[in-house]
Amino acid sequence: MTREIRLNAFFMNCVVHQSPGLWRHPRDRTRDYTNIDYWVDLARTLERGKFDALFLADVLGVYDVYGGSVDAALSGAVQVPANDPVLLVPALSYATSHIGFGVTSILSYDQPYAFARRMSTLDHLSKGRVGWNVVTGYLDSAARAAGRSRQNGHDLRYEIADEYMEVVYKLWEGSWEDGAVLRDREAGLFTDPKRVHRIRHEGRHFTLDGYHLSEPSPQRTPVLFQVGSSPRGRAFAARHAECVFIAGNSKTEIRKLVDEIRSLAKAAGRPPEAITVFLSAVSVPGWTRSEAENKLDDYRRYASVEGGLVLQSGWQGLDFASAPLEAAIGEVRRGSVEAHDRSDRAADRRTIQELGMATTLGGGAPLFLGSAAEIADEMQDWVEQADIDGFNLTSVVAPESYVDFVDIVAPELQRRGAYKRDYAKGTLREKLGGAARLATSHPAARHRVAEALV
Amino acid sequence: MTREIRLNAFFMNCVVHQSPGLWRHPRDRTRDYTNIDYWVDLARTLERGKFDALFLADVLGVYDVYGGSVDAALSGAVQVPANDPVLLVPALSYATSHIGFGVTSILSYDQPYAFARRMSTLDHLSKGRVGWNVVTGYLDSAARAAGRSRQNGHDLRYEIADEYMEVVYKLWEGSWEDGAVLRDREAGLFTDPKRVHRIRHEGRHFTLDGYHLSEPSPQRTPVLFQVGSSPRGRAFAARHAECVFIAGNSKTEIRKLVDEIRSLAKAAGRPPEAITVFLSAVSVPGWTRSEAENKLDDYRRYASVEGGLVLQSGWQGLDFASAPLEAAIGEVRRGSVEAHDRSDRAADRRTIQELGMATTLGGGAPLFLGSAAEIADEMQDWVEQADIDGFNLTSVVAPESYVDFVDIVAPELQRRGAYKRDYAKGTLREKLGGAARLATSHPAARHRVAEALV
Repeated sequence: MTREIRLNAFFMNCVVHQSPGLWRHPRDRTRDYTNIDYWVDLARTLERGKFDALFLADVLGVYDVYGGSVDAALSGAVQVPANDPVLLVPALSYATSHIGFGVTSILSYDQPYAFARRMSTLDHLSKGRVGWNVVTGYLDSAARAAGRSRQNGHDLRYEIADEYMEVVYKLWEGSWEDGAVLRDREAGLFTDPKRVHRIRHEGRHFTLDGYHLSEPSPQRTPVLFQVGSSPRGRAFAARHAECVFIAGNSKTEIRKLVDEIRSLAKAAGRPPEAITVFLSAVSVPGWTRSEAENKLDDYRRYASVEGGLVLQSGWQGLDFASAPLEAAIGEVRRGSVEAHDRSDRAADRRTIQELGMATTLGGGAPLFLGSAAEIADEMQDWVEQADIDGFNLTSVVAPESYVDFVDIVAPELQRRGAYKRDYAKGTLREKLGGAARLATSHPAARHRVAEALV
Repeated sequence: MTREIRLNAFFMNCVVHQSPGLWRHPRDRTRDYTNIDYWVDLARTLERGKFDALFLADVLGVYDVYGGSVDAALSGAVQVPANDPVLLVPALSYATSHIGFGVTSILSYDQPYAFARRMSTLDHLSKGRVGWNVVTGYLDSAARAAGRSRQNGHDLRYEIADEYMEVVYKLWEGSWEDGAVLRDREAGLFTDPKRVHRIRHEGRHFTLDGYHLSEPSPQRTPVLFQVGSSPRGRAFAARHAECVFIAGNSKTEIRKLVDEIRSLAKAAGRPPEAITVFLSAVSVPGWTRSEAENKLDDYRRYASVEGGLVLQSGWQGLDFASAPLEAAIGEVRRGSVEAHDRSDRAADRRTIQELGMATTLGGGAPLFLGSAAEIADEMQDWVEQADIDGFNLTSVVAPESYVDFVDIVAPELQRRGAYKRDYAKGTLREKLGGAARLATSHPAARHRVAEALV
């Protein structure tokens, strides 16, 4: 049977998400990111193309590793300025009917009690179309902005994240029973107090004593997304995530990673297929191959190598301005004592110039180029070979990259039976193939009170 | 000259704001508060009636003082469940064009860095139509939910609030100069790094080292609202607030309070008229007086005395379930060691029953009843006698209370030249009579970098 491909648009509430320099392209509209009409137009395009969700990345700091300053990030608009992604969702869900919205929230800098209410409110307002990308953060600049000298160590961040999840699960799943809200005008009983439970949590990193402030929303816990690249991150994802974002260019390497995530999920007592895996990718489609190639050539003229290096410096914690562009990446890495784990050893022989350029069109993700049939072939081959479920499509020129995909590639995938012609009914979780609420095999489910399980 | 009256709708993202029990009225729609269409309908009604702003109150805890438990609050839906107010603004500003939006944010439980970005994002998305009600919180339950044993003392809360304001002023006013963002495609220069400034703050309660993440929004600092009833609160309001909310039923008492606030502002180096004063009020208008009286009688049948006492117990920190309904309020107050300062000594002779009933239709605010002419007379008399600028109109039955005001009273006020027929152009601050940015006499202005003042 042809496997149905899942699609998110992977984007950010700023000018440059992962295609530095492209904001200078005459047809690019990302510099309108402060204007809600631009966003509504984008969301409606994606909904016309049956995208599962618009996924919004976020950072709460600046990219200041490159050259030891924020200057290059500012002049190239590399993820700064960056507005709050969460606030787009109420307007965009009001202006659409089906598409889901994933928001990144960096739990290291947010109180769980207020955060849990924020997500419940979004889930109410969007009628159950919200997902949450659980992120622990990777920028020291974000830690400094929150008044700390630097961020916590990598594994400690995940330990804190595990406890944070426990707290919000208790609030979302355990505080209000399903039948608690009666809205009974005659009896004058809005909520049955016996079915609302006080949450007490006293842990190593969080203390809380209170009632969740929101009544149960359609999904309760939002659909949980996670990027788990490190071993500790993968273990976290296997335990918590319903959707996992991965990045890479080798089908065999990605296959290994997907196998590992699925077997880790199984080991955590969850069905391996409970995790939907999205691969970062970018597409440049044309009505003909040569049209696509010409488009790519045109795009490349606006790419900013420096912008690509600003991103890579932030991601890897390595200052790629500290060596000449012709130097090998390995030279910079060897000069650093604290390389992050995003590194790919085999790539160390590339020059800094090559790394920067490779990061300009979609942040280094696989680039699908050509006609509808060629791109559809490549996407189906990825799904087949690497056992992924779909793609996080980032853009080169926005909204053009999405308009092109929707007009050119989506109909071809639909003809092949590899892509939905219509949305399924219900919440985002239901559209992704689950029930409205989290499966009982998920660790959040054990916080439900007994009555709610009946 | 006839003085123009300012109007906010004073509301909350929940079922019962200040009219407990009225959700049981057949025409009341507050129980639809999770539905965005209900909110859009409300906002458009207010915009049709030229309201300056929809103001959204908030709590981050539950009313659990009455009877020492949350039970009565839950069964009567007294400000619980309560969703996040901030998330309504993006959808409602998208669905309207002129009306402003005031949001309450309780600074005791929010990091200034992320909060400042949230407000800047709202100001961008709404094209400068955002106000912030600065609140330090008054519920111990909110402190416990944030992992503390109880809230900080009253004066310490204001000391922390003063420092919080300093931090967010620095971010909003001092980080990005007006000319910093160039959006220059040809030169490849989005932002001029020389005109973006790092904010370093090391204070008693907050530490921060970073750049504001949002580029300057139309208003930069949102319009600042504050409820200042205690002496310390009034001093805070005189220093920071552009709009002050006050509550009370005596024109002479309110006049004294307004005089004091205006002279405190003057002492703080600000023009006395820089502060716009709104009095809490509620109206029950009819096409005739008898229609209005019948409407009020009908409403009263749904009022909940217990709900009124749940609110009063939370506001005053006194358990009004601890004595019989026939007892005088003074008995409960004398039994408590820590009465808050909202008390009104002269009212102590009222019974608990009377207090509860008086709090059911608009939380005890002055109630304007009658025909359009009668209500307009009363409103103009308040403005004249008490030197207030306008009203925070709360509702009894929603949206009916606002629909009635817009259809019946607003045209009469317009005929008298006491109410605008159309919105002024520009941001909320401009609509309220100021410039788009805060006046130079405001303490936030000293955080502007020199170049921005030119």
